[in-house]
Amino acid sequence: MEKTITVLPGDGIGPEVTEAAVKVLQAIEKRYNHTFNLQYALIGGAAIDACENPLPEETINLCSESDAILLGAVGGPKWDQNPSHLRPEKGLLAIRKHFGLYANIRPVKAIPALLEASPLKKEIAESVDLVIVRELTGGLYFAEPRKKTKDYALDSLVYTREEIERIVDTAFQLARSRRGKLASVDKANVLDSSKLWREIVEEKKQGYPDVEVEHMLVDSTAMKLITKPDAFDVIVTENMFGDILSDEASVITGSLGMLPSASTREDGFGLYEPVHGSAPDIAGQNKANPAATILSAAMMLREAFQMETEAAAVEEAVFNVLNDGNFTGDLQVEGKRVLSTTEWTAKVLEELD
Amino acid sequence: MEKTITVLPGDGIGPEVTEAAVKVLQAIEKRYNHTFNLQYALIGGAAIDACENPLPEETINLCSESDAILLGAVGGPKWDQNPSHLRPEKGLLAIRKHFGLYANIRPVKAIPALLEASPLKKEIAESVDLVIVRELTGGLYFAEPRKKTKDYALDSLVYTREEIERIVDTAFQLARSRRGKLASVDKANVLDSSKLWREIVEEKKQGYPDVEVEHMLVDSTAMKLITKPDAFDVIVTENMFGDILSDEASVITGSLGMLPSASTREDGFGLYEPVHGSAPDIAGQNKANPAATILSAAMMLREAFQMETEAAAVEEAVFNVLNDGNFTGDLQVEGKRVLSTTEWTAKVLEELD
Ligand SMILES: CC(C)[C@H](C(=O)O)[C@@H](O)C(=O)O
Ligand SMILES: CC(C)[C@H](C(=O)O)[C@@H](O)C(=O)O
Repeated sequence: MEKTITVLPGDGIGPEVTEAAVKVLQAIEKRYNHTFNLQYALIGGAAIDACENPLPEETINLCSESDAILLGAVGGPKWDQNPSHLRPEKGLLAIRKHFGLYANIRPVKAIPALLEASPLKKEIAESVDLVIVRELTGGLYFAEPRKKTKDYALDSLVYTREEIERIVDTAFQLARSRRGKLASVDKANVLDSSKLWREIVEEKKQGYPDVEVEHMLVDSTAMKLITKPDAFDVIVTENMFGDILSDEASVITGSLGMLPSASTREDGFGLYEPVHGSAPDIAGQNKANPAATILSAAMMLREAFQMETEAAAVEEAVFNVLNDGNFTGDLQVEGKRVLSTTEWTAKVLEELD
Repeated sequence: MEKTITVLPGDGIGPEVTEAAVKVLQAIEKRYNHTFNLQYALIGGAAIDACENPLPEETINLCSESDAILLGAVGGPKWDQNPSHLRPEKGLLAIRKHFGLYANIRPVKAIPALLEASPLKKEIAESVDLVIVRELTGGLYFAEPRKKTKDYALDSLVYTREEIERIVDTAFQLARSRRGKLASVDKANVLDSSKLWREIVEEKKQGYPDVEVEHMLVDSTAMKLITKPDAFDVIVTENMFGDILSDEASVITGSLGMLPSASTREDGFGLYEPVHGSAPDIAGQNKANPAATILSAAMMLREAFQMETEAAAVEEAVFNVLNDGNFTGDLQVEGKRVLSTTEWTAKVLEELD
């Protein structure tokens, strides 16, 4: 197959980890006889530096003409004092909104070789296998009106039926393909938007009799993610709750540096990126863990290109390298061999050779 | 001293745990020669059953005439299907708003005797000693406009300068009396209300040169509360973020059943209640852990009545009983002696005798 991929390296460790993932994609290309046309574009701080715009027109155009987007990370202290339209994160928010990428999918699964690095007790973390489905283009992030004076500020939390229905459908379908359990998270005892959310989940569940649905409050969910994370299968929630809960969930297995994500829409077009940030403190030092970006590329192969065999091969390669005791410096595992970004990537490439 | 306390037992285990705390208050009364006039009133489900109103006028009047309020817990499945103005939580929200109790204070401190019950590894949980200061009467909880149709819902997140200034002052003062570290948590890369929040914290910090302030994003805070909770001293944040983060923080030391809280305002008048909920599954079985309510009563003695010695005596009694190996059934500690609510309370009373 022939596919066009736009690569957005971004800031901090972004260029290093996307370079690693690109090498892995090239190995897949060769081994399975595909053609991946790679085109590079700017986003975030790098784009601000080059053209005073965190998401340049040119980047949008290239992404529009491609089959999928692979992103590294954005942000860094260099741009922290910029006015808000010139902040790296604006590029990320704008690309999500521009392409209508409303479904953010973040799987979190315990990796036996890394359990030692988890802040949780082993017996709590070891069987975690959950996916957070976060609504990504609605709610407090984008709604109008907004207002800010020196003495007053207003943000609006708006959801329409259509926005809720489509993300809830995504989550039900995902739950059906997994263990059939869905936790819908809201704050229906306080928010009107959560009441609408809950009503729509109740309606939708008629269409998925094979999925067991539970409504949970966001505050209790924040507790249960720590005390009983293995009780979750699929979690669906609105944008801001999803931001908080998915970051919380990302550290429970000790493998933040391993977690991929996809931001997609109905037709499957999407942006694939690691959950971790741009880690400016270690940028350019060949120390970053490229696993999350490599696994994001695997998600892209599976979800965007329906290349299940290829995706599974990448994942297997990554896990083999870890199981053989090879780690990057971010992972606090005893008796580990610590490799650089390029050394670790080379091990993965060997597995794929 | 003579003080009037309104006791609101509420629902579920509320009556049992407030009864335990009342016995402790009576022991303090006797030992230190105070007079505590106790008056009882209805709130939550109990009030809905009695007079179709989760916060009856009569309750407001009694609270107004008292020096402090002691609350058990509200809510339960019995009222879950009620229309929203007849839900137990409405009573809680209404009493906070009516009395302007804008500062919710929740200390979380590791208790050596209970560390085994923590979901976190011992080395991460053992030195946790933090306080969350949550704004309690603003933001998404109360702001207008709100709107809900079958196809659309709107909630508003509003903060005024005055609302932010007073809670930020509370937090700075608390930080100054502790280890001098304040984490102000917001989502300033997305929300206008968070930008105002951050500006005001920046202004205020000039007045507290002895306090070290850090701005943190709510998503990274949700991670750090698990990976490095001992890095926090005082955390200050808006209402909804505080709801989520304080529940998250409440489980990290394994002692949810031990955590007290205060909801207060400038003049010190306040409502004291355990962090845990009404636990309808064990209500009426003499199984509930009364420690959080007893420690809330201790907070009341200290904060509302300036009875430092008395407060410390209650706290010491509670910790002695735990250190002697006496626990209620909620605490998963090996080799423990499991006592009923009344048996456990009796041990505390012995200590105070
Ligand atoms: C950078 C920021 C605006 C973004 C968000 O809040 O969505 C990030 O935290 C994320 O989760 O992708
Ligand atoms: C019962 C509910 C409305 C309340 C809140 O969200 O404030 C509770 O979760 C709390 O934290 O006291």
